[in-house]
Amino acid sequence: MSMEPKIINPEAIEGESFRIIETELEEMKAKPQLSPEEFTVLVRIIHATADFDFAKNTVFHPEAVKSGVNAIKRGENIVVDVEMIRAGINKSGLSKFGCEVLSFMSDEDVAQKAKELGITRAICSMRKAANVCPRSVFAIGNAPTALFELIRLVRNKKLFPSLVIGVPVGFVSAIEAKEEALKLGNYDIPYIVTRGRKGGTPVAVAAMNALIRLSTEKG
Amino acid sequence: MSMEPKIINPEAIEGESFRIIETELEEMKAKPQLSPEEFTVLVRIIHATADFDFAKNTVFHPEAVKSGVNAIKRGENIVVDVEMIRAGINKSGLSKFGCEVLSFMSDEDVAQKAKELGITRAICSMRKAANVCPRSVFAIGNAPTALFELIRLVRNKKLFPSLVIGVPVGFVSAIEAKEEALKLGNYDIPYIVTRGRKGGTPVAVAAMNALIRLSTEKG
Repeated sequence: MSMEPKIINPEAIEGESFRIIETELEEMKAKPQLSPEEFTVLVRIIHATADFDFAKNTVFHPEAVKSGVNAIKRGENIVVDVEMIRAGINKSGLSKFGCEVLSFMSDEDVAQKAKELGITRAICSMRKAANVCPRSVFAIGNAPTALFELIRLVRNKKLFPSLVIGVPVGFVSAIEAKEEALKLGNYDIPYIVTRGRKGGTPVAVAAMNALIRLSTEKG
Repeated sequence: MSMEPKIINPEAIEGESFRIIETELEEMKAKPQLSPEEFTVLVRIIHATADFDFAKNTVFHPEAVKSGVNAIKRGENIVVDVEMIRAGINKSGLSKFGCEVLSFMSDEDVAQKAKELGITRAICSMRKAANVCPRSVFAIGNAPTALFELIRLVRNKKLFPSLVIGVPVGFVSAIEAKEEALKLGNYDIPYIVTRGRKGGTPVAVAAMNALIRLSTEKG
């Protein structure tokens, strides 16, 4: 019977997965030029998606990992675009540092404002973030309009993210929003961006959880 | 300035995305032989992942959509493996039918049992589901061990799912678990399965939300 899984210990499953990913990256000669910490983040993104395209698509601003880890250690909040990302983030890992994960997308005032203006709740959620917590880590996995608005608020000096994980998935405006996000370096805002259409909740969650783990390891 | 997104109305963004997906499926000549309802589910999966591999990988048992829609209309519960999937499912859409989304993975008794037996919480969460709600829709997006255990419980006549969305992502046991799930038809259990490594939270959520929408449309 082949019915039983070969490995059922959770840590063993994870370890074996990472070994496979590293081996295949070597074989594909697709292992990009990354620092060990950046490579850790990339491996976790591939682990969450089983998609090696992210080895080519993922772009790290040189200060991204350091700035994200430092922000977590300082207890900054993490602002996300959708609830699903909040559900996936390792909140007990974050709580040690006093960080909270905030999503404004479903707030009553945000929904009302969006309806009033005929724009996405995602846009309004970023405006609320600029009022409530302008210095935070931002993880945008779904709404290109949130990422566009975030960039606009940075340019207008209303938002000062410690790190932008800009990885919305999609067919309309996602590529364009992420190409704009690559210019955040001009404003000294570090980013992790997945170019092209791909990205999404698992990518945002994997990147955040990798940073949380790095923060914990580095005491 | 190319800073502003071209389309900011949420319904318009979604409509345009679906148009692009359908066009590219035609162009790729990858449009599989599916019923209109199955095609709707597939388009939503591609929309959530920007990954056309799912046109090749997604397998529908012939009764899957019908059985899932009927289960929702009967007010059956939806059992998921991880919280992230629950967060993404359209719960207000489900509440009309009296359905609840249940996840047992983080339950105290499940965690304790898993530790005791040295197995995954995912396995124990399926055993709890067999006790609590053996007739439900199951959406497994992350844990191959949950899917293996679900299949074992079906074989042992402890679990009678109306539909199994079996789409765990990963490098260890995911492929094998999904190949086993393709045999659920032998037990008259309908399934939606993504063969290979790919799958995950967005795929499980997209499939569920497509079924919820179909249930609503078909009033």
